[in-house]
Amino acid sequence: MTISDPRAFLTGLFQAAVDAAQPSLCLPPHLPSPPKGRTIVVGAGKASAEMARVVERHWKGQLSGLVVTRYDHAVPCENIEIVEAAHPVPDAAGAAAARRVLETVQGLTPDDLVICLISGGGSALMTLPADGLTLDDKQAVNRALLRSGANITEMNCVRKHLSMIKGGRLAVAAAPAQVVTLSISDVPGDDPAVIASGPTVADATTFGDAREILERYGIQAPPSVRAHLRDAMDETPKPGDPRLDRCQTVLIATPQASLEAAAEIARQAGISPIILGDAIEGESRDVGFVHAAIARQVARHGQPAMAPAVLLSGGETTVTMRGKGRGGRNGEFALALAVALDGAPGIHAIACDTDGIDGSENNAGAVVTPDTLTRANAAGLKARDRLADNDAFGFFEPIGDLVISGPTMTNVNDFRAVLVLKF
Amino acid sequence: MTISDPRAFLTGLFQAAVDAAQPSLCLPPHLPSPPKGRTIVVGAGKASAEMARVVERHWKGQLSGLVVTRYDHAVPCENIEIVEAAHPVPDAAGAAAARRVLETVQGLTPDDLVICLISGGGSALMTLPADGLTLDDKQAVNRALLRSGANITEMNCVRKHLSMIKGGRLAVAAAPAQVVTLSISDVPGDDPAVIASGPTVADATTFGDAREILERYGIQAPPSVRAHLRDAMDETPKPGDPRLDRCQTVLIATPQASLEAAAEIARQAGISPIILGDAIEGESRDVGFVHAAIARQVARHGQPAMAPAVLLSGGETTVTMRGKGRGGRNGEFALALAVALDGAPGIHAIACDTDGIDGSENNAGAVVTPDTLTRANAAGLKARDRLADNDAFGFFEPIGDLVISGPTMTNVNDFRAVLVLKF
Repeated sequence: MTISDPRAFLTGLFQAAVDAAQPSLCLPPHLPSPPKGRTIVVGAGKASAEMARVVERHWKGQLSGLVVTRYDHAVPCENIEIVEAAHPVPDAAGAAAARRVLETVQGLTPDDLVICLISGGGSALMTLPADGLTLDDKQAVNRALLRSGANITEMNCVRKHLSMIKGGRLAVAAAPAQVVTLSISDVPGDDPAVIASGPTVADATTFGDAREILERYGIQAPPSVRAHLRDAMDETPKPGDPRLDRCQTVLIATPQASLEAAAEIARQAGISPIILGDAIEGESRDVGFVHAAIARQVARHGQPAMAPAVLLSGGETTVTMRGKGRGGRNGEFALALAVALDGAPGIHAIACDTDGIDGSENNAGAVVTPDTLTRANAAGLKARDRLADNDAFGFFEPIGDLVISGPTMTNVNDFRAVLVLKF
Repeated sequence: MTISDPRAFLTGLFQAAVDAAQPSLCLPPHLPSPPKGRTIVVGAGKASAEMARVVERHWKGQLSGLVVTRYDHAVPCENIEIVEAAHPVPDAAGAAAARRVLETVQGLTPDDLVICLISGGGSALMTLPADGLTLDDKQAVNRALLRSGANITEMNCVRKHLSMIKGGRLAVAAAPAQVVTLSISDVPGDDPAVIASGPTVADATTFGDAREILERYGIQAPPSVRAHLRDAMDETPKPGDPRLDRCQTVLIATPQASLEAAAEIARQAGISPIILGDAIEGESRDVGFVHAAIARQVARHGQPAMAPAVLLSGGETTVTMRGKGRGGRNGEFALALAVALDGAPGIHAIACDTDGIDGSENNAGAVVTPDTLTRANAAGLKARDRLADNDAFGFFEPIGDLVISGPTMTNVNDFRAVLVLKF
């Protein structure tokens, strides 16, 4: 098979990556058997309302419950209540919902089943400060953590020790019921204890670890937070805790599975897939430069594989704003890639956020072709200037190279594909 | 074969990469046959004195000549004069030497042979302003180009059109003699017309292109430069120019050949080499983050190859100074890699400049091991703080992880290897 339309081929790879993470496709095979007793559905995350809808559609028997999702991410459900709350900075709606989630799973019996639907963003959406702490306290610490340079594991350790629901505490509340957690991962390493701060997963970290992290990053926490981390007695459940014996977590979608789905499409088309990584981080433009250099290596030296080949990668890059333009991290990656490739023949690319929204505008990402710079020049657009102004949207929009999918109701982070054809 | 000492193995890969670019090893096989007439050796670059020494040692018969190298890069020669000059900003010594190089190749016959020894840095070292221009004029333009964001191809187009020697003009001067150019490449793509601005290679660019580049980057050139680019009549020789019919260029060392040499060592040890690129550019720390993510992909998913494997890459990264620390781009890459790997088991790495000097200190680069951060913590060194301060030297020096080779007398840019063992 030849690739007669590289743009359509790349869009197809992105679609395959999104499909692999669609609750409607990836969730049903992992639904547990109905229990003798009641079935309660809880959860939090950007994809959790859609996950709840899919559970409802496929569930044989009675169920009820409550899930929290981001504002504007609700979908209609019949028996599961959907509550919207703020992300990434928690609000009172999220706190009220979290308290109700905890109440919902209390008083269950060993015959009952809790299905917990977790996806990225759940940590902020299901916030419930520990006794003696206010939402303001937690928000202050959260903001300081986001600024501090602490990584996601460190941030979540602190969050778990200021929370009544995170770090396995939701599972403790649900005991002795059976708890099946269905997770969509958006974190490097796919550790269920990290995704949404693992409300149903044992936590190996301690109050002491949380204190050490605040100290390491010089975070000035409110006195109530410092007192709580020093004096609180109720540790999170540790690995091996018998209260979590009936808890089970299934990763129903991961960045890697989405990359593998795209790789399979490529393979069927006779294109060698080269999966570089499911958790690539770094400044978007520089990640773009590196992908361009690897694509040139394929074209010039047949390494790491001979053309035709497609580089695939996931993860979450970062844009350090230096200009005043519009666009997100995937657009910035694509623009930097176009600049670095400088019209190299036979190389096309796509970069999109799998949640369908790349930053502040309405596009999922953008496509790069060998004549991107030529077409842009003809339209009076200077690629380097647009890159310097962080204006990927302003660059790709006029030349018709935005990818617009609308919100996908799932999220396994970024998807990038760089296609190197024989030339 | 197992890798009992990963640090020694990685140091061995670096040594193999340097050896592959050593004039003493890679130059002799490419020496032409002695001519009927005279043999003249000329050239410029950081490695050119060493190249001249090797030519002398292996040459059967009489020769004489003159090569220009960087201050402190001279080596003793018997019949070829070695002149030192300034790099990267040209000085009067380089201009005087360039004039003498041109004189040296004048008045030759078809029976004579010119051996031209070219390596990185030659463009600045062999500077000879065109008639009507001063060295100050050229320096002003050169500084503005370095600041402008123009790429090396664009900078060289301008330089060639302000020069009496670049862009094939040296070859025109040497006609009708035979000219054999032996080049060590330090540029992406290894185009002989780009290396040291191709003094013996036809130039496809024009005075018009040079004017367009100054305009594109808004460079305020001195009036004499603008007048020269507008009025000069003597274009550089174009591809197909008969005066260059007897010119031949041999790439005796390239970044790719050095990576292949390291790959062969790895293969012999049962380690799969994954060559990512011979021309990777971008901010050093972000290039480090991407390499770390690819190494984790090898460890976790066996992609793009199963462990044991070694990622190999070359090119030239950049450090945007934000702090006040010491060290070069390879140390910064290594430190960022260590931070991103965060002690991942079984992953070791080396990053060095093949010229033996990584930035301002005396080290070629540094080594990363799984316990780098543990050992650094024990020594009171915080990796993230040192990275924020651009202080890779201050991080790796106290824990004994610098690589110190001394000047290697060659340069094929950066060498990086990330070894992922089974764990």
